Order: sequence, then C-alpha cells, then structure tokens
Amino acid sequence: MCELLGMSANVPTDICFSFTGLMQRGGRTGPHSDGWGITFYEGLGCRTFKDPMPSAQSRIARLVQEYPIKSQAVVSHIRQANRGGVCLENTHPFTRELWGRYWTFAHNGQLTGFETLDTGRFEPVGSTDSERAFCWLLAQMATKYPKRPADPLAAFADIARWAGELAGMGVFNMLLSDGEYVCSFCSTQLHWITRRAPFGQAQLLDEDVAIDFQQETTPNDVVTVVATQPLTRDEAWHKMARGECNLFLWGERVAQSQVSLPPLSPT
Amino acid sequence: MCELLGMSANVPTDICFSFTGLMQRGGRTGPHSDGWGITFYEGLGCRTFKDPMPSAQSRIARLVQEYPIKSQAVVSHIRQANRGGVCLENTHPFTRELWGRYWTFAHNGQLTGFETLDTGRFEPVGSTDSERAFCWLLAQMATKYPKRPADPLAAFADIARWAGELAGMGVFNMLLSDGEYVCSFCSTQLHWITRRAPFGQAQLLDEDVAIDFQQETTPNDVVTVVATQPLTRDEAWHKMARGECNLFLWGERVAQSQVSLPPLSPT
Repeated sequence: MCELLGMSANVPTDICFSFTGLMQRGGRTGPHSDGWGITFYEGLGCRTFKDPMPSAQSRIARLVQEYPIKSQAVVSHIRQANRGGVCLENTHPFTRELWGRYWTFAHNGQLTGFETLDTGRFEPVGSTDSERAFCWLLAQMATKYPKRPADPLAAFADIARWAGELAGMGVFNMLLSDGEYVCSFCSTQLHWITRRAPFGQAQLLDEDVAIDFQQETTPNDVVTVVATQPLTRDEAWHKMARGECNLFLWGERVAQSQVSLPPLSPT
Repeated sequence: MCELLGMSANVPTDICFSFTGLMQRGGRTGPHSDGWGITFYEGLGCRTFKDPMPSAQSRIARLVQEYPIKSQAVVSHIRQANRGGVCLENTHPFTRELWGRYWTFAHNGQLTGFETLDTGRFEPVGSTDSERAFCWLLAQMATKYPKRPADPLAAFADIARWAGELAGMGVFNMLLSDGEYVCSFCSTQLHWITRRAPFGQAQLLDEDVAIDFQQETTPNDVVTVVATQPLTRDEAWHKMARGECNLFLWGERVAQSQVSLPPLSPT
C-alpha cells in the first residue's frame, strides 16, 4: 500500500506540517520506502519534487519539509512498490498536459488487467498500473471533451464514473488535480478534513510535532487535507466511503458523487 | 537574453560544477534574474527543479549545487524575461510526453509572430514564445511520426529543419532532450565542449571555483557540455555557427546539420 496526501486551500498555504507526518511513513514509521513525490501548483505552473529513495532519508524530502512552498493545490504520494520497479519513471505523482493545464495524479492500490487499458495519445513512460490508469483517464477526458468543458462539474461526474471503472479492476484510491480543482476517489481508504476558523491545535500521529493552526492562519483561511490515514491525533477526520468521489475547490468541497462498486474480492 | 546549459554523458555524471557557474549569472554576475530550472534524466524518468526566483538567491538552486544528482542527460536554463510574465508556468525547462518519452526543452532568444504557431494537441500552459515553439515542434514530430521513429537520426534532420523555421521568426537557441539524445540548435550563440581522457583542470569564469576532472572521472568517461557562453576559462570551447544543429548521444556528437538562415535583422 502507498499513502496519498492532497491539499486544497483558498489561500497559498504551506503543507510542511502534514508532509512531515507523511514522510515518516516512508521507511521509518511505515513501510513505504520505494520513493515519494509531491507536486505543488503555483498559478498555472507546478513543480514536482520526487525521489525513488525512501522519504525518511531523502535530502530532497528534507528540503520540502523545511522550505515552505505555498500552494493552493498539492498532490503527494509515498510508495510501496507492487507494480513496476523502483525507479524515477515509476515514482508518483505523474503529470501530463490536457486542455492547456497540467494534470497531476497519484494512486494508491493495484489493478489487475491494466495492461490492456487503451491510453490513446497519452503514452505511459514507466511500467506502473498507476501511470497507465492515469493516461487512460486523460484519454477518456480528451475524447469526451476535446476542449476544457465550460462546466467542470459536468466533467467531474464523468471522472467519478471512469474512476469507478478503474476501481472495478482492483484497488484504486486516487488524487487528481489541475491546479484549481482537487479530486479524490476512494476505493478502500481515504480520509479528509477541512480546517477553518476557529482554528485549534493538532499533533502529528507519526512524529512528535504539534502545531497551533491559529498562529499560522488568518480567520478567512479554509484548508482541506486528504490523506490515506488521518495524520493527526486530536482532530475529527472524515472517512470516505467505498466508491465516494469528492471534488474540492480552493479548500471547499464543491461536489460529491457516489459510485456503486462491488464488494472487494478477498486477496 | 537567457542562458542555456545542457549535458550529455556516457556515465551518470553530476553537473554541480557547471551549474554553480551558471547560477552566478542569475542575478549576481549576470542579469538573468527571472527564474531558472534544471531537468535531470535518470533512466526514462526525469525530475525538474525550478524557481521563478533569481537563481543566485534560490534555496532550491543551492540544493541542486550541493546535492550531486547523477544523470546522463541534463537541460538547464536561467531566464531574463522578454515574452511572458515572471511566474512558475513561464519558467523553463518545459516537459511534455511524446512516444512514451518525456521531452524537455529550453530556449534562449525571442520570436515574433509566435502567437499563430499551431500547436495541435500540445497546448501551452504559460504565455511564453518558448513554450509555444516547443509545443509546435512536438506537434510537427507527432504528425510526421505517429510512433517513435526506428531511426532517430532521420527525425533529427527534421528537427533541425523545424528549428530553422522557428529561427526564421527571431532568435532561437535551443536545447531539446528525450533523456537519451540531447539536441542543440544555434541561432546566435551556443558553445560546446567534450571532455574525455586525459582529463585536465578547469576554473569557472563566474566563480572562484576550480575542478580537477581527473579526480572526478574514470578514463572511459565522455561528457559533453553545451552552454550559451563558455563556463570555464582554461578550456577550448567550440563556438557553434548560426544555423548549426547538433545531436549528442551519451557524451558523443553523433550527428550535425547546417540550416541556412538569413542574416539576423538588426534589432
């Protein structure tokens, strides 16, 4: 299993606190030692830091923890490899351009029969089920919507349905963003929390670090964090249901969809 | 004017020495203070570090200088903005996937009339002439070669010709790589040097730093560096001619092409 971390915020916000918790799971408090990556959007641009090395030992991960890059949309992932070797081209998140936007994707789970997914003009570079699923998803989007749809909420319903198709092939927990919207799909486990005034305190589960959000925010800030497992011990995280697809925009949940999925087959 | 830096090598090689020289030109010894970026290929994967901040003051640039990422193909750029605002989405290098490879591009110069270039399915995200030229180039490649050509040297002749078309619109010095090949096109200024045994010493022009390559290499290493201006004071750099297009593979120049260009119009 890998772990996902996403953020959507109404003001540029640094994710150092949550990232610090997640990184400990990469080879220290967790088994996810096969690489990590994080994509920060800033305006229409984005930058990705990634490393096929365990995050708990990565010098680049340390930079990301210490250097507060402020962003309104973030997608991050730490990996425990199950499909595809441990190398840079198999390290999440993956990014491709569609409709003049950079789309970023990270996946937790594994798919069976993914080799036959037709990815159209989006060719995978690496060998993971995840990147192929992402390329297939983009191909569906590009085919149905040759141009960016005027109503992104219409496209969201399609994305939920396509994600559901992928979840029919195995385990498919996903984060997807174009820098404006952050979309999550839950196949087996995913949690989220929206922080807004009055802000409280929180302590990381994985590291002896506490934060007083009131010191770090203004009263109008709205910040949503999505993660495989709750990252803090003293906050109420929402557990997403199997087949639940959520769309976040600038910190707020703006749409929700429920896809009917068969029960997970025992593995 | 921006500055370009590229590397092609037959063994994974760190570019810290050359990068240290280049970064000084970003706001200290040179005027290129509108951002910088560097893409390292490792296998089929690549990672890009970029910052819209001046490189001489960038904490991420310092990490790249101190943390020896070893690569066989590198594309780097520092920017002095002339087309498009100073922001992350306008910061070189730009990367897109084609034929299941990541293609990375950086440009020095400026183009007139670039707005009308038809980029097909490769849509620019930012507003620079450079990214649009890159997307147009990829669209030409994708149209002529729906699949990766069996003979990359045939495609090289086409790329030289298309680069020549772009150079007809202004100043177009370029680096382009798919992680295996590194291609350069010279419109006004570009230099290159191939280092191989017996290795000597070199001193940076921009910083009081010297290196003894013999200490850093094995006798079989072959490393080519391409840069807008020579980076060292005690080596013989080759100056590329106007319209000269070079193809490097694992440190060796494997093809050269000369495109006929009209004299530069006075600006």
